[in-house]
Amino acid sequence: MNFLEERIMKDGQVREGNILKVDSFLNHQLDITLLDQIGRTLYEKYKDRGITRILTIEASGIAIACMAGQYFHVPVVFAKKAKSKNLDGALFTSSVRSYTYGKDYTITLSKKFLQNTDTVLIVDDFMAIGNAMHGLIDLCRQAGAAVGGIGIAIEKGFQGGGDQLRTEGYDLTSIAIIDHMDEQHGVTFRPNP
Amino acid sequence: MNFLEERIMKDGQVREGNILKVDSFLNHQLDITLLDQIGRTLYEKYKDRGITRILTIEASGIAIACMAGQYFHVPVVFAKKAKSKNLDGALFTSSVRSYTYGKDYTITLSKKFLQNTDTVLIVDDFMAIGNAMHGLIDLCRQAGAAVGGIGIAIEKGFQGGGDQLRTEGYDLTSIAIIDHMDEQHGVTFRPNP
Repeated sequence: MNFLEERIMKDGQVREGNILKVDSFLNHQLDITLLDQIGRTLYEKYKDRGITRILTIEASGIAIACMAGQYFHVPVVFAKKAKSKNLDGALFTSSVRSYTYGKDYTITLSKKFLQNTDTVLIVDDFMAIGNAMHGLIDLCRQAGAAVGGIGIAIEKGFQGGGDQLRTEGYDLTSIAIIDHMDEQHGVTFRPNP
Repeated sequence: MNFLEERIMKDGQVREGNILKVDSFLNHQLDITLLDQIGRTLYEKYKDRGITRILTIEASGIAIACMAGQYFHVPVVFAKKAKSKNLDGALFTSSVRSYTYGKDYTITLSKKFLQNTDTVLIVDDFMAIGNAMHGLIDLCRQAGAAVGGIGIAIEKGFQGGGDQLRTEGYDLTSIAIIDHMDEQHGVTFRPNP
């Protein structure tokens, strides 16, 4: 098991409704040493891809993106989930369906922060069905930016979003992929390649 | 001028309605080198206060909190602005009035991530009237945690929230304090102590 899988086994909790609670280290309380290790792992994987910008989505993705950004020495930009009065000028927007809440929301990014000369590393803390990731990819498509790679901390492999993106040709790295989980047996990881 | 004041003069834009746009480096696109400098500055100020936890609020506060967390080697925790299905168990909540939107919202924090043994550094990217900060202080009060310090990147001094907190006895550091701004004359900083 790698460092993140070990941490999930130690501190993650499986709840009904396919919920994996990792709020003690990844998405409510943040273990900065662990996040740094995630950022460094993504850098090792994508350092030769000519990444010019890291794109994520608020809120927990920001932490991983910042840590990765320290290694890549490129700007980080995060898509906003709510339309903000502080966002003006030309905007890219995309509609995303929330699996957790069963409704659509709009993600927004200022056009000035994503260009057709960019090669983007998209990062997020979680991937399940992949709806938010498709929204971020759509923002890159609108900008004419290349997606140089996708880096995820925890992928719920059994929900299929990651494998769909791999089939579509994206170079996706998830540091921990969960192939099965339930409250009785806990978590089973996909073997590391 | 310090490093942040220089950056505001270079890349900040004053818009009507007391809005300072710093979205190219602080709260939409993130300049990681600058954020690291903010984190290190807050560490130098508060490193001898026995800080055990850093508290912030989503979304942009997370970036500064992570950078500061690397120096303090303590956990970061962020209050959530929306009630999430992923939040369960006992919660601290506080009501905050949004200056930008003129309505109230609830901030939420799992009780397990803030204890009466904690000495907390509260950080955020902006302070204006200080409503969000009062909500974060209220969460600490509910937990019985001590507020060891408050670190802000940009304080809109003319809106009074920072000076009120200083009067109340909080040890507040804002790296840049704006005492006046308008579209015609730009930004005037409070002299550094």
